[in-house]
Amino acid sequence: MAYGYNGKILRVDLSHGTLSTEELGDAFYRRYFGGRGMISYFLLRELAAGIDPLSPENKLIFATGPVTGVPISGSGRNSVGAKSPLTGGYGEAEVGGYWGAELKRAGFDAIIFEGRASSPVYLWITDGKAEIRDADHLWGKDTGEALKTIREESGERFARFAGIGIGGENLVRYACIINDLKDAAGRTGLGAVMGSKRLKAIAVRGHEPVDIVDKNVLLALNRKIVTEFPGFTKNIHDFGTGATMTKYAQNGNLPTRNFRDGNFENPEGISAQTIKKTISVGMDSCWACGVRCKKVVKLEEPWSVDPEYGGPEYETLAALGSCCGIDDLKTICKANELCNRYSIDTISIGVTIAFAMECFEKGLLTEKDTDGLKLTFGNSDAMLKMVEKIARREGLGNILAEGTKRAAQKIGKRAEMFAMHVKGQEVPMHEPRLKWGLGLGYAVSPTGADHSHNIHDTDYTLEEQMRPLNALGLSEPLPPGTLGPKKVRLFTYLSIWRSLYNCLVTCRFVEFTPTETVNIVNATTGWDTSVWELMKVSERAINLARLFNIREGLTADDDRLPERFFQPQTSGPLSKTALDKNEFDKAKHLYYGMMGWDPDTGIPTRAKLEELDITWAT
Amino acid sequence: MAYGYNGKILRVDLSHGTLSTEELGDAFYRRYFGGRGMISYFLLRELAAGIDPLSPENKLIFATGPVTGVPISGSGRNSVGAKSPLTGGYGEAEVGGYWGAELKRAGFDAIIFEGRASSPVYLWITDGKAEIRDADHLWGKDTGEALKTIREESGERFARFAGIGIGGENLVRYACIINDLKDAAGRTGLGAVMGSKRLKAIAVRGHEPVDIVDKNVLLALNRKIVTEFPGFTKNIHDFGTGATMTKYAQNGNLPTRNFRDGNFENPEGISAQTIKKTISVGMDSCWACGVRCKKVVKLEEPWSVDPEYGGPEYETLAALGSCCGIDDLKTICKANELCNRYSIDTISIGVTIAFAMECFEKGLLTEKDTDGLKLTFGNSDAMLKMVEKIARREGLGNILAEGTKRAAQKIGKRAEMFAMHVKGQEVPMHEPRLKWGLGLGYAVSPTGADHSHNIHDTDYTLEEQMRPLNALGLSEPLPPGTLGPKKVRLFTYLSIWRSLYNCLVTCRFVEFTPTETVNIVNATTGWDTSVWELMKVSERAINLARLFNIREGLTADDDRLPERFFQPQTSGPLSKTALDKNEFDKAKHLYYGMMGWDPDTGIPTRAKLEELDITWAT
Repeated sequence: MAYGYNGKILRVDLSHGTLSTEELGDAFYRRYFGGRGMISYFLLRELAAGIDPLSPENKLIFATGPVTGVPISGSGRNSVGAKSPLTGGYGEAEVGGYWGAELKRAGFDAIIFEGRASSPVYLWITDGKAEIRDADHLWGKDTGEALKTIREESGERFARFAGIGIGGENLVRYACIINDLKDAAGRTGLGAVMGSKRLKAIAVRGHEPVDIVDKNVLLALNRKIVTEFPGFTKNIHDFGTGATMTKYAQNGNLPTRNFRDGNFENPEGISAQTIKKTISVGMDSCWACGVRCKKVVKLEEPWSVDPEYGGPEYETLAALGSCCGIDDLKTICKANELCNRYSIDTISIGVTIAFAMECFEKGLLTEKDTDGLKLTFGNSDAMLKMVEKIARREGLGNILAEGTKRAAQKIGKRAEMFAMHVKGQEVPMHEPRLKWGLGLGYAVSPTGADHSHNIHDTDYTLEEQMRPLNALGLSEPLPPGTLGPKKVRLFTYLSIWRSLYNCLVTCRFVEFTPTETVNIVNATTGWDTSVWELMKVSERAINLARLFNIREGLTADDDRLPERFFQPQTSGPLSKTALDKNEFDKAKHLYYGMMGWDPDTGIPTRAKLEELDITWAT
Repeated sequence: MAYGYNGKILRVDLSHGTLSTEELGDAFYRRYFGGRGMISYFLLRELAAGIDPLSPENKLIFATGPVTGVPISGSGRNSVGAKSPLTGGYGEAEVGGYWGAELKRAGFDAIIFEGRASSPVYLWITDGKAEIRDADHLWGKDTGEALKTIREESGERFARFAGIGIGGENLVRYACIINDLKDAAGRTGLGAVMGSKRLKAIAVRGHEPVDIVDKNVLLALNRKIVTEFPGFTKNIHDFGTGATMTKYAQNGNLPTRNFRDGNFENPEGISAQTIKKTISVGMDSCWACGVRCKKVVKLEEPWSVDPEYGGPEYETLAALGSCCGIDDLKTICKANELCNRYSIDTISIGVTIAFAMECFEKGLLTEKDTDGLKLTFGNSDAMLKMVEKIARREGLGNILAEGTKRAAQKIGKRAEMFAMHVKGQEVPMHEPRLKWGLGLGYAVSPTGADHSHNIHDTDYTLEEQMRPLNALGLSEPLPPGTLGPKKVRLFTYLSIWRSLYNCLVTCRFVEFTPTETVNIVNATTGWDTSVWELMKVSERAINLARLFNIREGLTADDDRLPERFFQPQTSGPLSKTALDKNEFDKAKHLYYGMMGWDPDTGIPTRAKLEELDITWAT
């Protein structure tokens, strides 16, 4: 284990307060590397089927990738995984910032938390040593306060922090984990798992650079990123995410009023350009990254928004904005800050509030349910209050803290058609009625609808756009608005390729070509890998995640989209068109077949499991 | 089409004496490149199902690969394909020498012959021009005489020749096509197809170097071959093939007396080392190759053997030697020379004669059938006489010219157990009872048992041996003598990888790693390809070849080995062990599944065809 990885995995038994390390060797890392690789491996190996995700029997895994912490853009991230309290299936989220790189520099590749502490604790790691520390005094505190206190206590002002606020503590089912104060391992409710374990934070300080084989290869490739800005990185370098609001409003891609409508009136009002012109105080970065896409905003009225908590990403601007019918940028920024203080996923909370707004407008919820709040689309004050109520599980907030799927079950049958989720996870901010391949991705992602898993454009209309994909054997641009076999083929290859980002734990905003990716992995690890081997690692991880879901009772029937996506939007550019259900179903089953799964059931065939050498997992 | 390929395919209608060229564009070449790619594409597209392989309806295709003719070892080869008169299915053979490189340098990537000439002709090609010329005066002549005459007629003493002798003219079902005088497109009877078209030869002279993007990359990689001799190339550089005779005799790999026995008494007598010490007059090479593995031998007594016809390869030494129980090196060399003169595959003729010898010893053939020849194992004089009789279709030779499968059907039921063929093609000179993976390869190869298709060692016992395969995701050495799921996985990946050689039309004796192979293709073509894309090209070609066979009526039942391989050898190291039939069958069906074929029928699933984007082929 000379390069890339340390070879050490830290295991923390919170029930017994014990720590241990284990070493699994190069062959393990090469087959199951990084986020999805390691997480799916350990969850399948170590969790009993059918456990309660919020019980001590769940395990919470923090994992880095083979290139985490190397001097190249997009390599500062880490993955977190557990059985998801939101979906009941495979839970996994990735997060940017510095924490992942810091963990590697502190000598560990991954941490597995087991059990539940008898009282709140945090984990302190520095340069190969780890220690469970008391966190009674931090429980109930915002992430920012916890971070500040830990840094003061340790005397390490550059310690990196991954932790939860009251959202996680109160087991909000879509609570996230916040890295430092700006970056969220957002999806699948991993903050609630952390809360259930009474684990407030993991603070890390490391000083050892990651061993790499050929730094010059990495530096040269990184130079390309910051001089050529390939793909759309120049745009997010300049504005961050959310600079395409107007375009999206025009083409129907901007979810509006709980995905009901297609005419958001003021997209400019919530755009990254407007932020840049008004409340931005600069751009921030993740570890070693030349893209620097992270907005920072500051507000002093009508309330303060602390720039330490960063600024809203596109997903947040749309989920708490257009999806709730809101164009009040300042309120969105405040809600974003609160979510980061409390450790709550902005996508799920936005879509859940939008769901409640639609229920309210339909009379399924009344002011009696909302403690007098007029929970209508566009009411930014009510939205902000609901964020607080959800974080504290107060009143209706206690129901909405369960997510749209469970909330709808409580509110009643008629509410279910407004619950925009897949497998229990709320749908992120791109429109399946516009991007059919994306819709298929939402449906079959092991984590449910997810903005970081299985989301990729399959609507390339120019040969030039296909060029970086040629190495995957893809060259033919295809028209949008279809899910024919060629589109499914494109989708399948791309979903394996993009899922590799979840294994490498690299940023999908930093677009290296397949060949460059191979070069990065080789220059780091000293392997002689290939696109083939990397695709197989990714495919292996996808199959393991699927096997986990199958073990937990999920079936092909769970690979489905909300009914709404098969009906047109009520207005706007997609008011005459929707996803074709028949074509969608055919595409789904063809995807199963292309993956080597039973075309009907979506269960991996024995031959596929043998081919990937993972029959141990069944 | 700036690089690697010319972009021009020559079509020759022999029935009408017309020539045309067609251009199919870069997208075609990138998906269906080279030997197996182009040949399977054109055969499926253009042949009607069920045609007689020796009728004018068959087409004969000569194809080069994307790197043919570039300055790197192993790149001088070409492929030939047609519906096989030997198997009735997909026919394809590769051949070394200079002809492939010369065709590229003359401006063409491939030639498709259609129809049948009314009288013998040959094709003359020089620098972008092609011409059908009369060959009445060449018909009936040895390849050497035809070559000499064509060179004299054309005034081009460096013209390269691919042609047939009387074996092809007389439609011996395993007639081959001889490049110049030493190299054979040996298998599947393509020389008979050439004979049926009354096409004596294709002579080529070209002066244009193949356009390549980065010559330096190629030169550097080539330097590695001739300085480091990776793999086993040093051995064949020094001795050529056949230097492992003694080892093979010791481990049971040397087919002896029609695969019956395991104790060949004098392996040294027919070894490459003995040739080097006695009758060798040096080593020869193919185009641009630093390995120079081609033996040249010369004899003056008891008969002359002309060094212009090269020397025997391992397959020839074993097929006409040990397999016939013969250790008389001089007779083997004479038989080899005759086969090259007459254009007959030395493997098939050797195994066919061995079959006849066993029939003779069992009394199924008598001296009445053999015109008085004592056709016993070890009778080298009888062997040589049978070569002549087969080439001329005289007496028993007329039956044996049909190959073991048809001959056994004529001789009678009891003879069938001695017919060592798969799908009608005679088994080459490695032992499935020793190398179980090789046996599976023989069984499932689209061409039947074939020394150039699907043959690869799967018995790697050291991690070091696995290292070049790491890039394919293979790292675990596996014990020999099993066909368990891990072995089938290794086999499946390797069979796709090695089949790529049949697509690239490069020499499997020149072992570049997967990464180096990608670099060679990129440096030639300017593509940004990957191991993934190359594997998919190969997989596509394998599937097309399989679809061709299915269309011609072949089923999973034809993917089988002769019964003898499931019984021990009568003596020697494998006298107590044989292939396990149950394990073999399970492995075959698992291989189907891993390939994305129906596990029972071996028919490619719709999803696999969609994934490879070849549904047009069904």
